[in-house]
Amino acid sequence: MKQSQTLIPTLKEIPADADVTSHQLLLRAGFIRQNFSGVYTFLPLGKKVLNIVEKVVREEMDAIGGNEVLMPALQSADLWRESGRWDKMGPELMRLNDRHEREFVLGPTHEEVVTSIVRDEVKSYKQLPLTVYQIQTKFRDERRPRFGLLRGREFIMKDAYSFHLTDESLDASYQAMYDAYSRIFTRLGLNFRAVIADSGAMGGKDTHEFMALSKVGEDTIAYSTASDYAANIEMAEVYDNYSPSTETLKELEKVSTPNKKTMQEVADFLGHPIDKGLKTLLFKADESFVLVVTRGDHEVNEIKLKHVLHVENIELATDEAARELLGADFGSLGPIGVSEDVQVICDLAVKAVANVTCGANEDGFHYVNVNPSRDFGEFTYEDIRFIQEGDLSPDGKGTIKFAEGIEIGQVFKLGKFYANQLGAEVLNDQGRAETLTMGCYGIGVSRTLAAIVEQHHDDAGIVWPKQVAPFALHLIVVNSKNDEQVALGNALYEQLQAAGIEVLYDDRKERAGVKFAESDLIGLPVRVTVGKKASEGIIELKERKSEEKEEMTIDALMAYVKTI
Amino acid sequence: MKQSQTLIPTLKEIPADADVTSHQLLLRAGFIRQNFSGVYTFLPLGKKVLNIVEKVVREEMDAIGGNEVLMPALQSADLWRESGRWDKMGPELMRLNDRHEREFVLGPTHEEVVTSIVRDEVKSYKQLPLTVYQIQTKFRDERRPRFGLLRGREFIMKDAYSFHLTDESLDASYQAMYDAYSRIFTRLGLNFRAVIADSGAMGGKDTHEFMALSKVGEDTIAYSTASDYAANIEMAEVYDNYSPSTETLKELEKVSTPNKKTMQEVADFLGHPIDKGLKTLLFKADESFVLVVTRGDHEVNEIKLKHVLHVENIELATDEAARELLGADFGSLGPIGVSEDVQVICDLAVKAVANVTCGANEDGFHYVNVNPSRDFGEFTYEDIRFIQEGDLSPDGKGTIKFAEGIEIGQVFKLGKFYANQLGAEVLNDQGRAETLTMGCYGIGVSRTLAAIVEQHHDDAGIVWPKQVAPFALHLIVVNSKNDEQVALGNALYEQLQAAGIEVLYDDRKERAGVKFAESDLIGLPVRVTVGKKASEGIIELKERKSEEKEEMTIDALMAYVKTI
Repeated sequence: MKQSQTLIPTLKEIPADADVTSHQLLLRAGFIRQNFSGVYTFLPLGKKVLNIVEKVVREEMDAIGGNEVLMPALQSADLWRESGRWDKMGPELMRLNDRHEREFVLGPTHEEVVTSIVRDEVKSYKQLPLTVYQIQTKFRDERRPRFGLLRGREFIMKDAYSFHLTDESLDASYQAMYDAYSRIFTRLGLNFRAVIADSGAMGGKDTHEFMALSKVGEDTIAYSTASDYAANIEMAEVYDNYSPSTETLKELEKVSTPNKKTMQEVADFLGHPIDKGLKTLLFKADESFVLVVTRGDHEVNEIKLKHVLHVENIELATDEAARELLGADFGSLGPIGVSEDVQVICDLAVKAVANVTCGANEDGFHYVNVNPSRDFGEFTYEDIRFIQEGDLSPDGKGTIKFAEGIEIGQVFKLGKFYANQLGAEVLNDQGRAETLTMGCYGIGVSRTLAAIVEQHHDDAGIVWPKQVAPFALHLIVVNSKNDEQVALGNALYEQLQAAGIEVLYDDRKERAGVKFAESDLIGLPVRVTVGKKASEGIIELKERKSEEKEEMTIDALMAYVKTI
Repeated sequence: MKQSQTLIPTLKEIPADADVTSHQLLLRAGFIRQNFSGVYTFLPLGKKVLNIVEKVVREEMDAIGGNEVLMPALQSADLWRESGRWDKMGPELMRLNDRHEREFVLGPTHEEVVTSIVRDEVKSYKQLPLTVYQIQTKFRDERRPRFGLLRGREFIMKDAYSFHLTDESLDASYQAMYDAYSRIFTRLGLNFRAVIADSGAMGGKDTHEFMALSKVGEDTIAYSTASDYAANIEMAEVYDNYSPSTETLKELEKVSTPNKKTMQEVADFLGHPIDKGLKTLLFKADESFVLVVTRGDHEVNEIKLKHVLHVENIELATDEAARELLGADFGSLGPIGVSEDVQVICDLAVKAVANVTCGANEDGFHYVNVNPSRDFGEFTYEDIRFIQEGDLSPDGKGTIKFAEGIEIGQVFKLGKFYANQLGAEVLNDQGRAETLTMGCYGIGVSRTLAAIVEQHHDDAGIVWPKQVAPFALHLIVVNSKNDEQVALGNALYEQLQAAGIEVLYDDRKERAGVKFAESDLIGLPVRVTVGKKASEGIIELKERKSEEKEEMTIDALMAYVKTI
């Protein structure tokens, strides 16, 4: 493509409202433009990368037997009422009426639509398992769209859905999809982790999020230094290798700790490390109260606590509730001597402590030389804390590190939720009707494009991995007033295209400095410069990533490009 | 693809609400399903054909230097106010509000969006001409969606826009686009005509509609039996080869024609053919009255009349107006002796008449032996009638025939309308700001799919042209309980796929009759049947179109498929 005949509107300045690198670079290099808040146009370069991402996704979906379909963006409100999501989803669900005042939804996902189709068209177990997918525009009315393509209101998703009679069949498709996702993100040049994630409220089971590691990520991942293990920190289990301390148990003693409220204040006052104290918090879990005990240096993970307690809502109790129930403020709570009506849960790490400190349920007093199994009433040990960097990995291999990540995909065993709501059944091999079970699998296609830029750039601009670059090669004529250079440029453009190389040819009458700067900004893998040595048939080749330059003859260039 | 692993829900019965062949067959053969009125899902087979159509469109757009982009479906209402279309378009424009009560449009086209981008990003004539295109979902809230994919509310369009400084540049891009469209529809196996069409209200100039000939078409085309000439009948010019009659002029005479009102009644009463009478109609054109005269066997074309008169609105005058202005009812109107205030326009064919009949502006009386140039006051000759079958073609080559057509594409010289409304200017080579001129070019992608089926089917089902078939070959095992047949079927499936043939393999445990009927319905170009002679390594090959069957060995089959 000749640059004079396309639209690559580069920007010298960083746009004021672009707050992350991918957003800045995609705007500056002329890949996208914002139409209005959270809604973007993909300009020619952006659309080319999008097409490449879609091609990779399509190939890997087809390879695992996915059937491509295309469902409508407009969805009937009635279907969303059947699933219950019409009421459950808030204003992020875009709703509209047609000319007859019938209500519609602009689809953010397609569970309802696809389940209704399968309900109507699939009658027998013989037609299962079935996997369909689509690459399609989705809508979500974000309250605060931001980060460019990372959190927009109109975006491109690959969404896939699989239907099964049995859990084993769902497990197999889930694994096939998991593997396909790993291949897709690897082919796209992304540094990613498949992390164990929270299955949320829809009654699903296993789920993994595919996270591109990036400092702009909105999620924190805990991963192992020595294995594939990775999980959202909200979900990361703690490895239970705690065994009782061998310390000699000392005698329990109540001491005065005037005005010492935080774990650190108490530890400093009593002269012991913070992990020699126990932290005690009172939670309201639905309608009950729960006393939760962790080591002083650990933090309670409320998601884990919710799972352990099988409750919908959990929140810290009020000071008033603590005083009424336990007789003290939050700074002096403890599990010793509490009423049997109050459930006590200790984190696993508490198994291994001895002669520690905890609140005495009396303002300004703590117990020292506390030993849980000796001193506490009835309680249980559960995994209820956040994992920490340096902890052993839950699979026993290596230790945990943290990273930030951008969610680029998710695989999810949905189970029977939608099939139940919409009544999707088939006849099994006994001729009896059975409710389907289901998986759903998403990839944020436009978001993936941004994630690639987050991972592949330098100070001068984007550095596209070869496999996703919009063009393989950037051809530049240094002096467009020099006939020899222009002639060689034109000839090379023809020759490279004839050799099957995708070339962006900067044939514009711009200064060389502008062309070079824009070329770095756009970030194609290879730059070929036709300059002063054009008369000798010599060009300069520069690799964008290594910044290595080399002068070579046309023949050497043509030999080189065959290796691209 | 194994049929057991995909979703091809065929129907034996014709769905009650499917009123045209393409709609019936695409439903029955399991290519599409309706989600609700005017909104469809493309099932795996339908999506495969859609992908093929899109690929052809993309290749031909790229070949003429089109730059693929992707603009959003959500468009700001403000842009539509700038263009004036927010008010001009009625309820077919889908409108919605976001959570902040800002108004949006779901794009039926993208003139506003693309013009706003070019306005903001293109600053110099050096960046022109520029052609961008996209393949994208559009929305249009049809009052009465019908004919399946032919008139839906959510559909796929290829829309392209070109931007220019000069009319000559626009002409060149228009011609390139016209030629590309011809190649696209030829490659898709369509019998089509590029017809001259009405440029409508937006102030544009040349426009051609690409019409797939079909009896379900909503438009009538006039085309030449001997040349490329084709036009919407509303636009077809009449070839002006009329020369004055050589008859001897007889004396004008007023005769009584009691209660004879229609042309036929008067002709019968006076004993002459209908084309020996003149038809006179009074029109109200904006605020003036115009008397329009045609030969008795011709019909006034109001669109031509509007163009001739340069008016916005035209309608037949009321009886009251005729009586007040001319002193008679409609059945007895004529152009002789009318006031000079009334404009008189005669159709070109009137040039060649002699000694004809016309109304006398007196109820129940006509003139006979009328000769216009002798008897009429001031008048002009204009081309104001509908062309008729049998007329000479306007290009002088052949005669005119009529056909019905489905509009599958349109090319349109929009001119400066949108650029003016949105203020899209560039600096010309003198450094002065000039308003852009613009072309727009559409292809109904999903509609094209339906048009192909309208043209390619028989009583048994669809007959896909090879180049758009979802699979090249349908492989069928007659008896799925026969191990030899199944083994050969499986082996052939592998072998054909390895040879790069796209195979649909009916591996289901269905009766042979069902498989054959569904195979004809789906309509792949070649069917390969593994039956009783499996043990001898012999299969049957059937061409869907010719219905020719042939038994052959596996080797012969593999040699044959190389020719596909």
